[in-house]
Amino acid sequence: MSAVDAVTLDQLPLREDLRGRSPYGAPQLDVPVRLNTNENPYPPPPELVADVAEAVREVAAELHRYPDRDALRLRDELAAYLSVATRVALTERNVWAANGSNEVLQQILQAFGGPGRSALGFEPSYSMHPIIAAGTRTDWVPAPRREDFTLDTDAAARIVAERAPDVVFLTSPNNPTGGSIPHGELEAVLRAAPGIVVVDEAYAEFSAQPSAVTLLEEYPAKLIVSRTMSKAFAFAGGRLGYLAAAPAVVDALQLVRLPYHLSSLTQAAARAALRHADQTLASVAKLAAERDRVVDELRGLGFSPVPSDANFILFGRFTDAKASWQAYVDSGVLIRDVGVEGHLRVTVGTPEENDAFLRASKEVPR
Amino acid sequence: MSAVDAVTLDQLPLREDLRGRSPYGAPQLDVPVRLNTNENPYPPPPELVADVAEAVREVAAELHRYPDRDALRLRDELAAYLSVATRVALTERNVWAANGSNEVLQQILQAFGGPGRSALGFEPSYSMHPIIAAGTRTDWVPAPRREDFTLDTDAAARIVAERAPDVVFLTSPNNPTGGSIPHGELEAVLRAAPGIVVVDEAYAEFSAQPSAVTLLEEYPAKLIVSRTMSKAFAFAGGRLGYLAAAPAVVDALQLVRLPYHLSSLTQAAARAALRHADQTLASVAKLAAERDRVVDELRGLGFSPVPSDANFILFGRFTDAKASWQAYVDSGVLIRDVGVEGHLRVTVGTPEENDAFLRASKEVPR
Repeated sequence: MSAVDAVTLDQLPLREDLRGRSPYGAPQLDVPVRLNTNENPYPPPPELVADVAEAVREVAAELHRYPDRDALRLRDELAAYLSVATRVALTERNVWAANGSNEVLQQILQAFGGPGRSALGFEPSYSMHPIIAAGTRTDWVPAPRREDFTLDTDAAARIVAERAPDVVFLTSPNNPTGGSIPHGELEAVLRAAPGIVVVDEAYAEFSAQPSAVTLLEEYPAKLIVSRTMSKAFAFAGGRLGYLAAAPAVVDALQLVRLPYHLSSLTQAAARAALRHADQTLASVAKLAAERDRVVDELRGLGFSPVPSDANFILFGRFTDAKASWQAYVDSGVLIRDVGVEGHLRVTVGTPEENDAFLRASKEVPR
Repeated sequence: MSAVDAVTLDQLPLREDLRGRSPYGAPQLDVPVRLNTNENPYPPPPELVADVAEAVREVAAELHRYPDRDALRLRDELAAYLSVATRVALTERNVWAANGSNEVLQQILQAFGGPGRSALGFEPSYSMHPIIAAGTRTDWVPAPRREDFTLDTDAAARIVAERAPDVVFLTSPNNPTGGSIPHGELEAVLRAAPGIVVVDEAYAEFSAQPSAVTLLEEYPAKLIVSRTMSKAFAFAGGRLGYLAAAPAVVDALQLVRLPYHLSSLTQAAARAALRHADQTLASVAKLAAERDRVVDELRGLGFSPVPSDANFILFGRFTDAKASWQAYVDSGVLIRDVGVEGHLRVTVGTPEENDAFLRASKEVPR
C-alpha cells in the first residue's frame, strides 16, 4: 500500500481552519498512577459488572436490530435519578442522552450555534467547549475570570449582554479550576443572556451546591443543564452524557442528532449502571474527603491549591509547569498540564494514589 | 414543571435552517414483519452473544477508565477482516471507526466539507448523505441518475467536473435502488473529482462486485471507502461504522472526532462480533438467494423490481405509494416508503417473512 501510505495531510483537501491543528486529548501514558483525566479511581463493584454483562447478554440477542432511536427507557431512568438528586420532577421528555457529554454539547451547538452564530465561555474552563464550537463552526468568544479563577458576576453579565452570544457555557464546578458558581451568579448570567445558557455540571455530584436543574422552571426557554456518567458514576468507559431541559430543547436536538446514535449496548449498560447508583456514588464522599486532605497537604508543602468542589485540584505555582509535569511523569505519576500558566491539575485518586502524588510533589521542581 | 413543559420549539433560538424540519427516521412500528431498515433478519448466533457478553464483562471491570481513544485493536481487526475480504493489504493506520457509518460520514464532512464547501450525490441514494451535509452546513448538490436508477457515467463525470464539489458520494450497492457501480464507472468519477470521493459500501458484502478498496492504491489522496457492521454483520444495534483510506485521512478525521467517541463496550463488542464473522456472514448467501427469489416472485405478480445487489429491493409501480405502504402495514408488514415516486423498498427477510410480504403484495392496491 505504498502510494496510499505515502499520502500526507498536506496533500488532502482539508479545511483551511484545521491545518496545523493537533488532535485533542490528554496523553494516554502507561504509568503506575494515572491522575490526569478526572476519572473515578474506584472500579465498578462486581455486582455492577455482572449486571452490565447480563444486560448486554440480553440485548446482544437482538443486535441485528437497530436500537430504540429515542432511548426512551434510558432517558426515563436518567430522569428518575436526576429527580431524586435535584428534587425537581423530571420525565424522559426533559432528558436527552448521547455518547458522552461531548456529543450532547455538539448537538446543542448544531441546533443553536453553527456558522454565523457565537458561543461564549469563561476561561480557563473545559477545553472541549471551544473545540466543539470550532467543530460546529460556531464563533468562540472567550471571556475572562478573576485572577483567582472565580467568576466576576457583574463583569460576566455585562459581557454576555454586550456580546449577545447565541450560547453561553457556564461550567459548575468549573474544570480545571474546581469552583462552583453560586445560584445568584448563575441567575445574573441567565438574565443577561439573550439565547441559550448551558450549565455544564459534569462534576455536580462532587459539589454540595444545588444543581442548576432547580432553575429550569424559571428559565425554561434558556437553560440547558448537561451532565455525564463519566465521573461520579465511574462510567467513563461507557460514554454516556445527558442533559435536562425543556422538552422543546429535546425536540430541537432530535433535528440534528444522528439517527440511532446510542447503541443498544450503551443503553443497556447505562441502565444497568444506574441501578447501582447508590454503590458508585458512595465513592463521592470518600473522594471529597480525600480532596480536602490533598488540598491541606499541598498547602502544607507550600503549594497554592485552588479551592475545589470537584474531584480534581488545580494547584501551583510552578516556574515551568511543563517541566514539572514531566518530573511527575518520571516519578510514575501522570497529572495534567491544562495550559493554565504556573499550574497543574491533579485528579483525586485513591488514598494510595494521592500519597504517591504527594510524595512526588515534594521532589518536583517548582 | 409546567413552565418548562410549556415551552415550544418556536420559542427557542433554533437555527433558521432547522425550523419546520422533522427528525430523520423510519417509523419504529410494532408489527409482526419488519422489513423496513435493511437489517439482517438472522439474530446473532448464541456463540456470538456469549462472546459479546463475556468481552463486555471483561472491560466492564475498567468502566471507570476512559476507553482507548484511538481504538487501535478494533481498527487492527477491522483492517484484518477487510484485507481478507478485499485482498488488499491494510493495517489499522488505514482504518477508522465510529458509532455507525453516519458518524464516520459526519466526521468526513467536518474535515473536508463544511460551510463554504459542497458535497454532491446521485439521487435517489442514501437519504442521510444530504442530512449529514446539512448538519455540517455543507452545501448539498443533488445530481440525477438515469430513469432506471443506474449511473450515467459520462453525465456523472461531467457534472462532477463542472460543479467541482469538495466531496462526492457514490453508494455501491446504492440504497434504496440496489445496484452496484462497476469499477470503470467509479474510476470515471474518481478521475473527474477534484476533491474527496466517498464510496459508501454499507451493503458491499451482499454484492459480488469487488470493493472500491482495491482502487485505494490508485487514488490514494481522493478515495475513502465507508463500511458498516450494521447489515451483513447483523450488528445494527451495536453501531459500528468504519472506513478504509490513506493514513493521512485517518489523521484528518482525528482533528474533528470527539475524543473517546467509541466506548470501551462498543470496542469490545465489535471485536467479539468480528471473531464470529464467518458465522454471521454465512447469512449473506441465504439472503442473496432469497432476494433473487423475491425479485422473481414480484415479477410474477406483475411488479417491476429494480435489479438489486443488496439485501433490499426497490419495486413498483404504485399509483399511490403512501397508500400502498399503509396497506402493507395494515397486513402486518412494515416496508419503507423512501420517497421514490411510484416505488417502495422492502428488506429481504427470512423465507417466512418474505412469504408474508409476498402474500401481502397480492392484496395491496397498486
